[in-house]
Amino acid sequence: MPAKKRKSKTKPSARGKLGVWIIGMGGGLATTVIAGTQLVAKGLVPATGIMTETEALSGFGFAALDDLVFGGHDVRPVDLYESAYEIYRETSTIPLEPLQEIRSELEVFQANLRLGTVVNCGDAISKIASRKAKTHSKQLTLAEQLKAIKADLKDFQSREGLRDVIVVNVASTEPPLELDKRHATPAGLKRLIAADDRKALRASSLYAWAAIESGYAYLNFAPSNAGLTPAHLKLALKKGVPVMGNDGKTGETLVKSALAPMFKHRNLKVETWQGYNILGDRDGEVLADDANKKAKISTKDGLLEQILGYPLHTHVAIDYVPSLNDLKTAWDFIHFSGFLNYKMSLQFTWQGCDAILAAPLVLDMVRLADFAKGRGEAGLMPQLACYFKNPLGVDEHDLHRQYDKLAEYLDQRR
Amino acid sequence: MPAKKRKSKTKPSARGKLGVWIIGMGGGLATTVIAGTQLVAKGLVPATGIMTETEALSGFGFAALDDLVFGGHDVRPVDLYESAYEIYRETSTIPLEPLQEIRSELEVFQANLRLGTVVNCGDAISKIASRKAKTHSKQLTLAEQLKAIKADLKDFQSREGLRDVIVVNVASTEPPLELDKRHATPAGLKRLIAADDRKALRASSLYAWAAIESGYAYLNFAPSNAGLTPAHLKLALKKGVPVMGNDGKTGETLVKSALAPMFKHRNLKVETWQGYNILGDRDGEVLADDANKKAKISTKDGLLEQILGYPLHTHVAIDYVPSLNDLKTAWDFIHFSGFLNYKMSLQFTWQGCDAILAAPLVLDMVRLADFAKGRGEAGLMPQLACYFKNPLGVDEHDLHRQYDKLAEYLDQRR
Amino acid sequence: MPAKKRKSKTKPSARGKLGVWIIGMGGGLATTVIAGTQLVAKGLVPATGIMTETEALSGFGFAALDDLVFGGHDVRPVDLYESAYEIYRETSTIPLEPLQEIRSELEVFQANLRLGTVVNCGDAISKIASRKAKTHSKQLTLAEQLKAIKADLKDFQSREGLRDVIVVNVASTEPPLELDKRHATPAGLKRLIAADDRKALRASSLYAWAAIESGYAYLNFAPSNAGLTPAHLKLALKKGVPVMGNDGKTGETLVKSALAPMFKHRNLKVETWQGYNILGDRDGEVLADDANKKAKISTKDGLLEQILGYPLHTHVAIDYVPSLNDLKTAWDFIHFSGFLNYKMSLQFTWQGCDAILAAPLVLDMVRLADFAKGRGEAGLMPQLACYFKNPLGVDEHDLHRQYDKLAEYLDQRR
Amino acid sequence: MPAKKRKSKTKPSARGKLGVWIIGMGGGLATTVIAGTQLVAKGLVPATGIMTETEALSGFGFAALDDLVFGGHDVRPVDLYESAYEIYRETSTIPLEPLQEIRSELEVFQANLRLGTVVNCGDAISKIASRKAKTHSKQLTLAEQLKAIKADLKDFQSREGLRDVIVVNVASTEPPLELDKRHATPAGLKRLIAADDRKALRASSLYAWAAIESGYAYLNFAPSNAGLTPAHLKLALKKGVPVMGNDGKTGETLVKSALAPMFKHRNLKVETWQGYNILGDRDGEVLADDANKKAKISTKDGLLEQILGYPLHTHVAIDYVPSLNDLKTAWDFIHFSGFLNYKMSLQFTWQGCDAILAAPLVLDMVRLADFAKGRGEAGLMPQLACYFKNPLGVDEHDLHRQYDKLAEYLDQRR
Repeated sequence: MPAKKRKSKTKPSARGKLGVWIIGMGGGLATTVIAGTQLVAKGLVPATGIMTETEALSGFGFAALDDLVFGGHDVRPVDLYESAYEIYRETSTIPLEPLQEIRSELEVFQANLRLGTVVNCGDAISKIASRKAKTHSKQLTLAEQLKAIKADLKDFQSREGLRDVIVVNVASTEPPLELDKRHATPAGLKRLIAADDRKALRASSLYAWAAIESGYAYLNFAPSNAGLTPAHLKLALKKGVPVMGNDGKTGETLVKSALAPMFKHRNLKVETWQGYNILGDRDGEVLADDANKKAKISTKDGLLEQILGYPLHTHVAIDYVPSLNDLKTAWDFIHFSGFLNYKMSLQFTWQGCDAILAAPLVLDMVRLADFAKGRGEAGLMPQLACYFKNPLGVDEHDLHRQYDKLAEYLDQRR
Repeated sequence: MPAKKRKSKTKPSARGKLGVWIIGMGGGLATTVIAGTQLVAKGLVPATGIMTETEALSGFGFAALDDLVFGGHDVRPVDLYESAYEIYRETSTIPLEPLQEIRSELEVFQANLRLGTVVNCGDAISKIASRKAKTHSKQLTLAEQLKAIKADLKDFQSREGLRDVIVVNVASTEPPLELDKRHATPAGLKRLIAADDRKALRASSLYAWAAIESGYAYLNFAPSNAGLTPAHLKLALKKGVPVMGNDGKTGETLVKSALAPMFKHRNLKVETWQGYNILGDRDGEVLADDANKKAKISTKDGLLEQILGYPLHTHVAIDYVPSLNDLKTAWDFIHFSGFLNYKMSLQFTWQGCDAILAAPLVLDMVRLADFAKGRGEAGLMPQLACYFKNPLGVDEHDLHRQYDKLAEYLDQRR
Repeated sequence: MPAKKRKSKTKPSARGKLGVWIIGMGGGLATTVIAGTQLVAKGLVPATGIMTETEALSGFGFAALDDLVFGGHDVRPVDLYESAYEIYRETSTIPLEPLQEIRSELEVFQANLRLGTVVNCGDAISKIASRKAKTHSKQLTLAEQLKAIKADLKDFQSREGLRDVIVVNVASTEPPLELDKRHATPAGLKRLIAADDRKALRASSLYAWAAIESGYAYLNFAPSNAGLTPAHLKLALKKGVPVMGNDGKTGETLVKSALAPMFKHRNLKVETWQGYNILGDRDGEVLADDANKKAKISTKDGLLEQILGYPLHTHVAIDYVPSLNDLKTAWDFIHFSGFLNYKMSLQFTWQGCDAILAAPLVLDMVRLADFAKGRGEAGLMPQLACYFKNPLGVDEHDLHRQYDKLAEYLDQRR
Repeated sequence: MPAKKRKSKTKPSARGKLGVWIIGMGGGLATTVIAGTQLVAKGLVPATGIMTETEALSGFGFAALDDLVFGGHDVRPVDLYESAYEIYRETSTIPLEPLQEIRSELEVFQANLRLGTVVNCGDAISKIASRKAKTHSKQLTLAEQLKAIKADLKDFQSREGLRDVIVVNVASTEPPLELDKRHATPAGLKRLIAADDRKALRASSLYAWAAIESGYAYLNFAPSNAGLTPAHLKLALKKGVPVMGNDGKTGETLVKSALAPMFKHRNLKVETWQGYNILGDRDGEVLADDANKKAKISTKDGLLEQILGYPLHTHVAIDYVPSLNDLKTAWDFIHFSGFLNYKMSLQFTWQGCDAILAAPLVLDMVRLADFAKGRGEAGLMPQLACYFKNPLGVDEHDLHRQYDKLAEYLDQRR
């Protein structure tokens, strides 16, 4: 009866509690989101990294951090506290002593973890899934799985007494899904589910469908494109649900989108932009699989031509380096011509922790999706472009312009 | 009679020729500006690096490159072709064969070189000046020197049949000048000149005063603060002359102003920003002198706090490395905290040629100053902020916002 | 009665216990040495970093790690466990849970901490010393202080029942001491002490003198040159005591001495070697003082010319960056000419923790000094050259040749 | 009659002229070797980069640079002066004005260029070969081609009046050849040639066989393993011919072999060594082909485990970046554990010109092979290990030990 236990602990605020349902709840990013929210809410660490806590973006009545209640799906049986403890051991990003102070909160949210699906996610993800998850994904029809996901969501809302739920996908990258006219309309997609066509959909397609049909906003922080097909977007409009994706912009691509405009405006011609990423966490392991890596690289590599306005030589590599754990390192080499066609270069080395960079963005997007839904907005949220490597429906990749769009969007709703 | 020789060579265009008078005409930057303009105008190299040649900033009828006629002051006797040849030998930024094709143009402009002054420029600059320049600076009163400069400018315009002249200071960095109320008004500054008070002014004060009194726009591409005192700004307003400074934003500081907003917007707290610059040209030699370096560092270091909005640990070093010649290398180490106060880092290594980066900006500013004057605008040109490390009268250091300001300014005058 | 408590805990091994007396016992390096020795001895971490634990250098019967008993002087009142805990908090180099397992050992060694002297150490060190240490240094004569140090050492040996003691100086860098003929002989140095000439000696001179007169080997891991003057070396020979210094070679200089021979052998001419070091611990704070920094830089910068065999442009900067704590970062830029005089470059960025790099070297040197003394060797130990930036009496700075010398030395004594 | 023309120009020295026959004579490396030798011999540039010109390795009567006469094979019709001029244009490594002073020498050597073979070299090389070379390779049997190569070599020696010839392979990398027992003996290899078995041999097998059968020393500077099979080595011993390979150690691997011993000796455990190479010349284009790249990477990657003595995570990437031309850039990331298992890192960025780094090594090896043959030495030359990424018959990869071996070898023959 963990739900009861919770009720005794959290005081219902005036606005009511908001559920955050995370696909991939047992992974490093979700653990960092959940543990981090408790640490910030308790004042044990500052709110660094959360954009909606800056002066420029505040004063909009966003959901309070201690009103957030977490739950989610995962394909591995995980213990949230153990997962957080493992992070402490490997990267020290979650410090041990504060972690011990929030252990009981993690145990409460633990009760909201449900078994997920690995339908057509590729071998790399199946390899890390539990036998039970795999059996479940194989034996139930797509329609049955969809129903189960929806039931999990409803149960979460009612048990926890939540005013609303936001669903966020932070699961490992699926291989890209070839979209065709069957994914073009809600009716088409429903037929695929009804026909149990497992080649035409992936796990993320089901999660997103379940969320949207249930009336919950959906955010795709993963590169996986199967979660927000045209059919999903149309359903979201119809259901009055805000959605956005794909692929959180956290590290190397963030820097790319901050620097590339400088070259453009200065009329410095970028000849070559090579990017080499090395990382060692579970995400890195999944990306070592070529099929899954393909999805990731395509979102990382396209933005340069769009910002600069001309074709150039680019290359993005992602290599698995176990010793790094979650401490991702990227080396970018930018070769550019200036006046008199003279070639010069800029190199950068980025050393960041992916989960630490991504977690506050998840919180921002949850708040902003809640904000949009509260104003009756539905469909894509282009104002969130600055959070994504591949912002759906948005051509602007210049980080600064994307940020300005977000600030303008909010200003107009002040 | 080189002026005559010129007339036979350049066909007066419809709009008429525009004079560009460069303080420091014999240096590497001026040589690159002059030779580069010829190479681009002749189609021997593309217009890379010139912002006013991009689609976004074009269509405003800026002065044509082959309408620009160059002249200037220098404190060393220099031969423009020899100077360009030396650049080819040291850095290959000016390629040899195209250089030979523009030799005659350089010889024509050579005739417009006049002897400059080193009044109160500090030992480092005096050391590289000719004996004649030093004698001249010592024996003539400030008033006499001012008169000589004005005569040189007038003679340039009349001999060359120029519709107007723009004066640009690209001379070596002077030590900073302590400003007080004597520099606050035109009357005060005139008294300093009349009293021949050599401690209270520097060479650049005289050049700028001569330009503004003559009705010519003045651009201070050097960090030297003595050239645009409050007295100069007031005189510029009175005379209807546009002016702007200080210190061209070409390399490390450019990257700083492009990257710092990313940290700010993402609420990533920059703890430390260390910048190490190494360079080996004459500019580097002058900056090896502590007094002169002080001026430079102060313009390079201040912008971070202004962009980020909080105090942080910063450090800027400039060291002289003769083997590099003009190929400046900068290493910046940025230490920042993210979510859960976790520290991460970004390092970059910038390898650029200072003259190559600066030269097209000089051409842009000449065009934009000519444009502003043509519209009757006078005093500071805040729209040029993106070109300066320390844009006078402007608090905005975010490169992207500065660029947007320039684009807006032009759009409003389309 | 902490000494008693110890006896009950440590079982005297066949060879007997060896005392390690550390000048600067409360600092980060000493804490890492002491805590690390316990962690390795208990098998909680591997022996990585200790050269005398490699196959190539083993089999010589070096002192066992759990036979080492620690004591020392410090000028601040410190608690060893607190100091280790602070290291865990700041850099996580000492992990928390294993630290808790060795808490009792640290408390035992804590009882061996004695108050040190700050005689003529410069303002930067005085600033971090306790009032008591400063008063003590001021009120006692040099002769009295020397006597007190000797008494501390004797008491340590007898209380702990040690077969011998090795004294190691890891205290903060003192300003360089100008040596003259008064420091040339033991008699001269005795006169300085007798005359209480506080300008002519520094704290490290007294510590070393006390150790050598007591018959204990002395190792100077600090750059401070006042601890091993010619007088000290002569006394060491006379007393049959091995000594060595100066300045442990741990990071940037280590890489320099590994890389420079490559350029020499390949006949690649190094034009420039710029080295920029940033660090943030107490050592960095002391080095922010120009007088103290001078000693450090002189040992870091000299070796290149000696390895390469020709003069070159070099520069070493050390800057204090508090946010880094003990995580030192160094950027080196090496500009070299190859065939046809063509210039190329190598840059490296070293990111290491100084204490982690230095601590195992301290253990190696303690063992090797014990080994040498056991064979009746006295005076300088040139075989330890690979451990020092400025190995006294040794001209060879090529790391690989230094290592070969150590291996040969041991082989001859197998 | 170019040979005649030569005779009138070069004065036969006392020792006589030495022929250097280069496989790949029209490529960037060969051009740099040939032009560079003239420039150094004429005193137009210093001898930087040539190890046999250092004091440590001199005094052995090595062949004089102006006694070297060049000839060679290529699969493209090339003009040596044009090739050198193109290098000037693209990278400025060969300066224009000195190039013009040696134009006549290049024209003389031009007459010694002969058409080569592309037998079984892979698609990437065929693509850059001339139609004539491809036809020739296809229509002639292996035996006929071998005979033609031998005739070219003999003709070179007699026409030019050379005391001996050294053959050096610097052609583009061939795909690796699977060796089996047919390549184990001279008889076996002869059978393959007689049977015209084009799958079992590659172009480099024929060149090397021709050289050795003709009694000429053979040096394999390329990674291609088909040129020095066990059969070749046995024939070399029988014929009294010195040979050595494979793959010149010029850049990233050179630094690896200089740095890895530091980690080994310090007992710092290297967890990961990632190496990323980007380059843009013809060599880079050929290496963009996966089959050819395989040969290269295998020689670059193996040495770490051999130096360190334990398995570790390594990765070597080579990517084609056209804008770089021959200016190769490599970024290496080394992740290592130190004391207390704490992880630290070293990164380096190497920016060098491959041809400039390799050319002087070719001259060194020619001299040293000539020296060895003069002393009656035959078969592999392990003393040349420091020049090769994969030195045949040598297990030692530590650069410093390799260098010491060369110095010892020479000292024993002084």
